[in-house]
Amino acid sequence: MPDPVRISVDGMGGDFAPQNIVSGCVQAASEYEVQLILVGIESQIRAELSKHSAIPGRIEVVDASEIVAMNEQATVAVRKKRNSSMRVTVDIASRGDADGIISAGNTGAMYATVKMTVGAIPGVDRLPLATFVPHPKGRSIVLDVGANVDCKPDHLLEFALMGSVYAEEVLSIPTPKIGLLNIGEEEKKGNDLTKETFPLLKNSGLNFVGNIDGYGLFAGMADVVVCDGFIGNIALKSSESLVETILHVLEKEIEEQPRIASLLTKYFDYSEYGGAPLLGARIPSIICHGRSSPKAIKNAVRVAVEFCRNNVNERIHKRLERMHSDNSQQLAQ
Amino acid sequence: MPDPVRISVDGMGGDFAPQNIVSGCVQAASEYEVQLILVGIESQIRAELSKHSAIPGRIEVVDASEIVAMNEQATVAVRKKRNSSMRVTVDIASRGDADGIISAGNTGAMYATVKMTVGAIPGVDRLPLATFVPHPKGRSIVLDVGANVDCKPDHLLEFALMGSVYAEEVLSIPTPKIGLLNIGEEEKKGNDLTKETFPLLKNSGLNFVGNIDGYGLFAGMADVVVCDGFIGNIALKSSESLVETILHVLEKEIEEQPRIASLLTKYFDYSEYGGAPLLGARIPSIICHGRSSPKAIKNAVRVAVEFCRNNVNERIHKRLERMHSDNSQQLAQ
Repeated sequence: MPDPVRISVDGMGGDFAPQNIVSGCVQAASEYEVQLILVGIESQIRAELSKHSAIPGRIEVVDASEIVAMNEQATVAVRKKRNSSMRVTVDIASRGDADGIISAGNTGAMYATVKMTVGAIPGVDRLPLATFVPHPKGRSIVLDVGANVDCKPDHLLEFALMGSVYAEEVLSIPTPKIGLLNIGEEEKKGNDLTKETFPLLKNSGLNFVGNIDGYGLFAGMADVVVCDGFIGNIALKSSESLVETILHVLEKEIEEQPRIASLLTKYFDYSEYGGAPLLGARIPSIICHGRSSPKAIKNAVRVAVEFCRNNVNERIHKRLERMHSDNSQQLAQ
Repeated sequence: MPDPVRISVDGMGGDFAPQNIVSGCVQAASEYEVQLILVGIESQIRAELSKHSAIPGRIEVVDASEIVAMNEQATVAVRKKRNSSMRVTVDIASRGDADGIISAGNTGAMYATVKMTVGAIPGVDRLPLATFVPHPKGRSIVLDVGANVDCKPDHLLEFALMGSVYAEEVLSIPTPKIGLLNIGEEEKKGNDLTKETFPLLKNSGLNFVGNIDGYGLFAGMADVVVCDGFIGNIALKSSESLVETILHVLEKEIEEQPRIASLLTKYFDYSEYGGAPLLGARIPSIICHGRSSPKAIKNAVRVAVEFCRNNVNERIHKRLERMHSDNSQQLAQ
């Protein structure tokens, strides 16, 4: 890997683009050892850059004439907008001119673009989208949160392995605790999927701590919580909406409501974590929240750099190979 | 149906039994036209009754020597404790001596007992457990929330129909809006189950308003939200735990925390709704929260009486028959 790590960034993706993206990139380029390639409508990107007094030499601008809208259908965006900032950002990395990818644009379109143009690490079957949920002592990674809605037990095992490697290498958790999201903690509980996944995780060599039920999701029972994308998506979105609901309930009644809102926002703030890693893609890819602040973008750059520098993908590949060869040996015995 | 409606109540079920159960029953018997059969260890039930100055004549006590523990395995409870207060409560209704059933005991055991000894309304395939989630203007029914973890599209259709009849007859909502819990609102979104269920609901004659995503769950987008028990259980439990998490976050920082806790408790308070109806069972059955207050038990009695008096089960049966005959006609055409 060339030094410094090169990250291509979709300059036009997100609700506050290009402003927050450019601003976050300027901060990242000053703080980290990184070469950034900012992709988008060049005049707009340069206009934003010109607002910053000291522009680090490590930001390059690449023009792309189109923009994928936040509500655009993913397949249409991938097929028709070949010159979108998102597509060009991904293409740059795909042809070897960047080591990692960041976008705060349309999640579905970004996922589809990476999946179709970058593809998977050899041996990886599904690409899960991971996110972070807060607990009293930190954050748990939850995956998949919406990309793969019908999973098989082997997919959840793959997610567990990838989540574990990511937690080790990027979050510096030595032997991450892996939990299986389920309706109860007992081994025999669950639907067909979780009942079949449980023994796979138990024999995986990962630090599997068993089933985690809905009550445990925000309690930090595991560092990595594995589930299919349907359940992950609904659990996360309903929780997000519940926090908003609670703030509304308190709004009319409590004078301190603004302070409560700020405390809760801080507790649920994902910006330190820099966005959702799309695991299993051949090139490290981070999909940031559409409403990302400059700080979130800056942290996404830091995370992308660690994702590349710590060889997460190579480790995933090797661990998968080892797991598959262990399984073959077991079958042969 | 004899007048007044007769409800058998498990006097020993729940974390605060028999105290809260007896107290709720005494209140209910004074307020409503109902005959109550209180089942449990007779000396304990009578001791609780004696604490109330005016004991209405409409409470009868039936002795049962055993108690199903809150954490006892459901199958063991059903098989081995033939003389538990729960089992006797259900048996009384099963042999025709009561019109409805209430227990605040072990949910799994109560569900299994009703399913095995009472059985389903003819034509009903699965018995969903329903619960209520708050929204700014009231409550939505969500079903199933844990009883049926692997469902087929026909099951979700059945749940929708039963939830709709319940909302009409017990909650007095004229044409309840039915939503399908999903990862997005567009028709084509979802996993295999929801994609196959969508057209069934669309052609069901119910007031189907489409998919409801996680964000919509607490927004009152539908009066009845349908999902399989796996997703319902996790969405509900994780939301419950999130409310607790939020109270912990605020506990250290906010002076008004006790007032916040009381506001949130009030918002999320289900006691007005009297517990979770177990829909599709041949005899109206209500499973109350283990921590039910006397008020919750009183309201459970009110709900059970309406459940019986408004012929919910008969209407479910007729509507199912009509739906099945419509389907046969469509197939024949």
